[in-house]
Amino acid sequence: ELLEKISDYHESDIADAMEQMTPEERKKLYPLLGEEYIAEILSYTEDAAEYLQEINLENAARVISEMDSDDAVDVLENLDADTKTRIVDLLDDDAEKDVKLILSYEDDEIGSKMTTNFIVIGKNLNIRQATHELIRQAGENDNISTIYVVDENEQYYGAIDLKDLIVARDYQDLDNLISTSYPYVGAHEKISECIERLKDYAEDSIPVLSEEGKILGVITAYDIVEAVDEEMGEDYAKLAGLTAEEDLEETTFQSMKKRLPWLIILLFLGMVVSSVVGIFETVVAVIPIVMCFQSLILDMAGNVGTQSLAVTIRVLMDENLNRKDKFGLILKEMRIGFANGLFLGIMAFVFIGLYVCFIKGNALSYSFLISGCVGVSLMLAMVISSLVGTTIPLLFHKIKVDPAVASGPLITTVNDLVAVVTYYGLVWLFMIELLKI
Amino acid sequence: ELLEKISDYHESDIADAMEQMTPEERKKLYPLLGEEYIAEILSYTEDAAEYLQEINLENAARVISEMDSDDAVDVLENLDADTKTRIVDLLDDDAEKDVKLILSYEDDEIGSKMTTNFIVIGKNLNIRQATHELIRQAGENDNISTIYVVDENEQYYGAIDLKDLIVARDYQDLDNLISTSYPYVGAHEKISECIERLKDYAEDSIPVLSEEGKILGVITAYDIVEAVDEEMGEDYAKLAGLTAEEDLEETTFQSMKKRLPWLIILLFLGMVVSSVVGIFETVVAVIPIVMCFQSLILDMAGNVGTQSLAVTIRVLMDENLNRKDKFGLILKEMRIGFANGLFLGIMAFVFIGLYVCFIKGNALSYSFLISGCVGVSLMLAMVISSLVGTTIPLLFHKIKVDPAVASGPLITTVNDLVAVVTYYGLVWLFMIELLKI
Ligand SMILES: [Mg+2]
Ligand SMILES: [Mg+2]
Ligand SMILES: [Mg+2]
Ligand SMILES: [Mg+2]
Ligand SMILES: [Mg+2]
Ligand SMILES: [Mg+2]
Ligand SMILES: [Mg+2]
Ligand SMILES: [Mg+2]
Ligand SMILES: [Mg+2]
Ligand SMILES: [Mg+2]
Ligand SMILES: [Mg+2]
Ligand SMILES: [Mg+2]
Ligand SMILES: [Mg+2]
Repeated sequence: ELLEKISDYHESDIADAMEQMTPEERKKLYPLLGEEYIAEILSYTEDAAEYLQEINLENAARVISEMDSDDAVDVLENLDADTKTRIVDLLDDDAEKDVKLILSYEDDEIGSKMTTNFIVIGKNLNIRQATHELIRQAGENDNISTIYVVDENEQYYGAIDLKDLIVARDYQDLDNLISTSYPYVGAHEKISECIERLKDYAEDSIPVLSEEGKILGVITAYDIVEAVDEEMGEDYAKLAGLTAEEDLEETTFQSMKKRLPWLIILLFLGMVVSSVVGIFETVVAVIPIVMCFQSLILDMAGNVGTQSLAVTIRVLMDENLNRKDKFGLILKEMRIGFANGLFLGIMAFVFIGLYVCFIKGNALSYSFLISGCVGVSLMLAMVISSLVGTTIPLLFHKIKVDPAVASGPLITTVNDLVAVVTYYGLVWLFMIELLKI
Repeated sequence: ELLEKISDYHESDIADAMEQMTPEERKKLYPLLGEEYIAEILSYTEDAAEYLQEINLENAARVISEMDSDDAVDVLENLDADTKTRIVDLLDDDAEKDVKLILSYEDDEIGSKMTTNFIVIGKNLNIRQATHELIRQAGENDNISTIYVVDENEQYYGAIDLKDLIVARDYQDLDNLISTSYPYVGAHEKISECIERLKDYAEDSIPVLSEEGKILGVITAYDIVEAVDEEMGEDYAKLAGLTAEEDLEETTFQSMKKRLPWLIILLFLGMVVSSVVGIFETVVAVIPIVMCFQSLILDMAGNVGTQSLAVTIRVLMDENLNRKDKFGLILKEMRIGFANGLFLGIMAFVFIGLYVCFIKGNALSYSFLISGCVGVSLMLAMVISSLVGTTIPLLFHKIKVDPAVASGPLITTVNDLVAVVTYYGLVWLFMIELLKI
C-alpha cells in the first residue's frame, strides 16, 4: 500500500522527495518501485547518477535500459568513466546502440540532445496499416504525436500529425496526410545555431537526420525547453563575467575556476587603465577636486556600455541581420546614448555645480566650470560607450567569436579609457591650459 | 499552383517570407491562402496585427476565430484598442468566449498564457466511448496527446496519456488508464512562481484550473518554452540595468524610457560615492599617485559583486532555499571572494609595485607600500563585494521584491563605497598617519 500512496504523486514530486531521503531509506524503496518505475522517476532528477550507485550494477543497467535514450545518456554522463563503461556494456542491445549513438555527438551538437524514442512508418502503407503500425510501436515509444515517414530507401520523407491519422477514414490516401514540408535538423548542427529555428517551428518533435538523410532521433519540445534554458543561462552567466553557469552543489574550488579567468584578465586591463590615469596625475595635483567625479563618469559609461551590449547580444541571437540592420542598430544605440547622455549631463552639470559651490564652498564660476566638464564628459562618454557597446559584439559575431564571452571586459576597458581621457583631457584643456586656473 | 508551391514550406518559413513582402504583394496573397491557412501562418509571426490591418474587419475576425485562442489573444493585444473591441465583437461565439476568458487574466498570471484548445471526457465512459469522443473532438482541437478527465460535477479528475488509450483493449477499464496524480496549475498563479514547477513536470500539456476545480484551459510545452524565454530574457535585461527587454523595432524614445530610470538612479547614487571620495581629497593631494588605482579596485569590486549577484539570482530562481542553504550560499560566496581576492591581491601587489618603482621611478619601499595598500584593499573589497552581492538579493527576495531589478544598482553603490573607504582609508592610515610620508 506504500506503493499505492507513492503513485498518487507525479514522478517529478517523487524525485524531489527522494532528494530529502537518506541513502538507507532509498535503498528500502528501490525493490518496491521496480526498475521501470525507477527509470521514470530518475529521468526527473539531476541526482540520478548518485542514486544508481546505491543499487548493484546489473540492476542499474536494467534501470538505464528502461529510460529514454537521452535521459539515459544524461545519467551516464554524470557517472565516473569506469562505472559508465561497465554499465554501458550491461545495457540491452537496443539501449546500448541508442546510447552509443547519442554519446558519439559533441556536447554542442544537436545530436547529443536527441532521443531515439519515436515512431516511423513506410510511405506506401494505407491508413489501416499505418494505424496498426502506430499501435504496435506506441507500446515502446513515448513521442507519438508526430509519426515520421520514410521512403523505400529509408530516407526521411515527411511527417504525419497523429491527430490527422486519428480522424482519417480508411478509404483515404495516406499520402494526403503526409506533410513533406515538415522541418528537420542535421545531427551535427550546433545547438546555438539551430535552437532559434527549432523554437520558431513550435512542433512537438522535430526529426534529427544523418548526412545521408536517415532519421536518427527526434528533438522534443522539452529538449527545446532545456536547450533554451541552457543557452540563455550561459549568456546570462557570461554577461556577469562567469565562464559558465554555476549551481549550488559545486565546490568552492570549481566555482573559483569559473570566475578567476575573467578576473585575472580584468585585473590586467584595469592596470592599463590605471597607467592612463597616471598620465593625468598632474591635473589632479593642481585641481584635486576633479578626481571625486571620476568614479561617477566611469560607472555611468560602464552601465551604458552594458546596456548596449545586452541589447546587441539578444538581437544577434534572435535575428539574421544584414549590413543595413547592423548599421541601423549602431545608429540607434548612439542616438539613445546621446539623448540619455544629454539629459544626464545637464542633471550632473546642475547638481554637481551646486554641490561644489555650496557644500565644498568654491566660487560659483569655478564650480560650474568643473561641473560643466563633468557634464560634457558624461555625455560624450555615454555616446561613445553606446557605440563601443554595440560595435564590439557585432565585430566578434562577424569573426565568429561568441560575443557574449569576449565583449564584456573589452567594452569595460575601452569605455574606462575613453571616459578617463575625455574627462581629464577636458579639465586639462579648459581649466589648466586655457583658463590657467 | 502558387499555393501548391507555398504549401511545400513550413508555416514558420512562410511567415518569415511574408515579412519580406510589400503590403501590396501580401494583399494579393491573402485571398489565395484562405482564412484557415492565414490563421495558421499568422500564429508564427509577431507582425500578425500589422497584416490583419491589410484585410477588412470581417475577414480579420474570421482569421482570428480560426486561430488557437492563446495565439488569437497575442494578436489582439498588438492591435489598437478600437480595432481590438470591434474584432472581438465580430468573432464567432466560441472564439469570443475563449478570448474574453484569456484576456481576463493579468499578464503575469498563468491564465493569460493558456489555450482553450484541449480534449476533455467524462470519467464514466468505457474505452470504446472514450476513443469515439477523442476522434470527435480531435477535429477541432490540436492538443490531443493528453486527454483530460472530469467527474460528474465537471471537476478536474485526472488525465489519460493518449498513448495508453491507443494501445488499450476494449475490455479494459478506463479508470485504470487515468492518472489522478497528473499535475495542474491554478489560473491566477503568477508565472514567475509556477514556471519552474511546470518545467520540472516536463509534460506535453498541463491543465489550468479555476478556483472551483474546473478545467479552463491548458499550458502546452511551447507555452512553457515561451514563458521560460521571457522570464530569462527579463532577468537578463535586468542584470544589464534595463527595465525590460527591448527589440529591434522599437523607437528610440521607447528604448530611452526603458534605460533612463536606472541611469538616473545610478547618477544620484554615483554622486553619493563622489562625495565620499571627496572626503579623501587631502589624501590624494599629498600622494597623487594613489588615485591611479582607484578605478582598478572599484571595477574589480563591481565585477565580483555582479558575479555573486548573478549566481544568487539563478539559485533563487531554481530552488527553494531554507535558512541553512542561504547561510551556506553566503559563506561559499565569501570563501570564493577571499580565495580569488588573495590571489589577485598578491598579483596586484607584485605588478603594481614594479610599475610604480620602475616605470614611475619611485623608491622601492615607497612603491611596495603603495602596491601593498592596493593589494590589501583589493582583497578586502572582493570579500565584502561577495558578501554584499549575495546578501542584498537574498534580502530583497525575503521581502518579496524582485531581486533582479533592485539589486544591481544598490550593490554597485555599496561596493563602490566600501572599496573607496577601504582603499583611501588604508592609504591615509598607513602612509600618512603612521609613516608620515
Ligand atoms: Mg537531455
Ligand atoms: Mg529505440
Ligand atoms: Mg503544424
Ligand atoms: Mg528528452
Ligand atoms: Mg549564445
Ligand atoms: Mg525568431
Ligand atoms: Mg501565447
Ligand atoms: Mg474551444
Ligand atoms: Mg508522465
Ligand atoms: Mg500556445
Ligand atoms: Mg524573475
Ligand atoms: Mg565600474
Ligand atoms: Mg528544479
